[in-house]
Amino acid sequence: MTGTPAAAAAFTLDPRLAADTVAVGRLALSRLLLMNDASYPWLILVPERPGLREIFELAVPDRALLIEEIAAAGRALAAALSPGRAPDKLNVGALGNVVAQLHIHVVARYRDDPAWPGPVWGRAPARPYPPGAAAALVAAVAGHLPGMLRSAPPL
Amino acid sequence: MTGTPAAAAAFTLDPRLAADTVAVGRLALSRLLLMNDASYPWLILVPERPGLREIFELAVPDRALLIEEIAAAGRALAAALSPGRAPDKLNVGALGNVVAQLHIHVVARYRDDPAWPGPVWGRAPARPYPPGAAAALVAAVAGHLPGMLRSAPPL
Repeated sequence: MTGTPAAAAAFTLDPRLAADTVAVGRLALSRLLLMNDASYPWLILVPERPGLREIFELAVPDRALLIEEIAAAGRALAAALSPGRAPDKLNVGALGNVVAQLHIHVVARYRDDPAWPGPVWGRAPARPYPPGAAAALVAAVAGHLPGMLRSAPPL
Repeated sequence: MTGTPAAAAAFTLDPRLAADTVAVGRLALSRLLLMNDASYPWLILVPERPGLREIFELAVPDRALLIEEIAAAGRALAAALSPGRAPDKLNVGALGNVVAQLHIHVVARYRDDPAWPGPVWGRAPARPYPPGAAAALVAAVAGHLPGMLRSAPPL
């Protein structure tokens, strides 16, 4: 186990979240993912704690980490898109009606996006990024998280 | 000013949020409101800080308060509805596409509610509670926030 905390060792990313996303890396608490949907610049944070469904089930110190990671992810996403595509608004959501594993969406929204002003969840099927575009956005987001990314996640 | 912090003094609840809700009370950071929509048990937290639109604009200590208030509101809402109507899931969201003032939704969801498994935002118009029902739910939620409610809000 070479020093891996037990809680992190027992964490497994939900297969549906894994299938729908591209990895950005790991923050102190959460796996950071990019939703593979070119319709919306869309990050997902998944706290690497096993068995969680609700925010109130996280320990208090983990909740403090989570809100900082939500803030950092939102700031990094907006910065990665600016100035050319600076978002009009960020949308943050923890729903879990379909995938129960606790995960938090951080979505850049535009007044001319397909769902505005409604929510993005439960709309049209995802439109996968063209080759290279997801990797370019991942790199731009990662570049705006200086010192916060611990590693690329294991495959 | 009698000791009122300047930031709180300058805060004014968005008129649309005020019109759509019933007051529960004030937490350390946020105004706590019940959405006047009998379709979903639905709380709204509004940090009493002026001029905020995004979570990343809150100061770090306020963010730590906010995530604790999100957790407490969710736990209190679930407890107020249990055991008879224990929610299947909580949905937490900070959207702000329509009302820009930073506010966080905490919604109790059921597998047989009108929007499941989709999000509640942007669906049918609100169905106001019948007389007495909103006050009863407000009292039940308040009863599950021991020591956390500072006061009923000013009208």
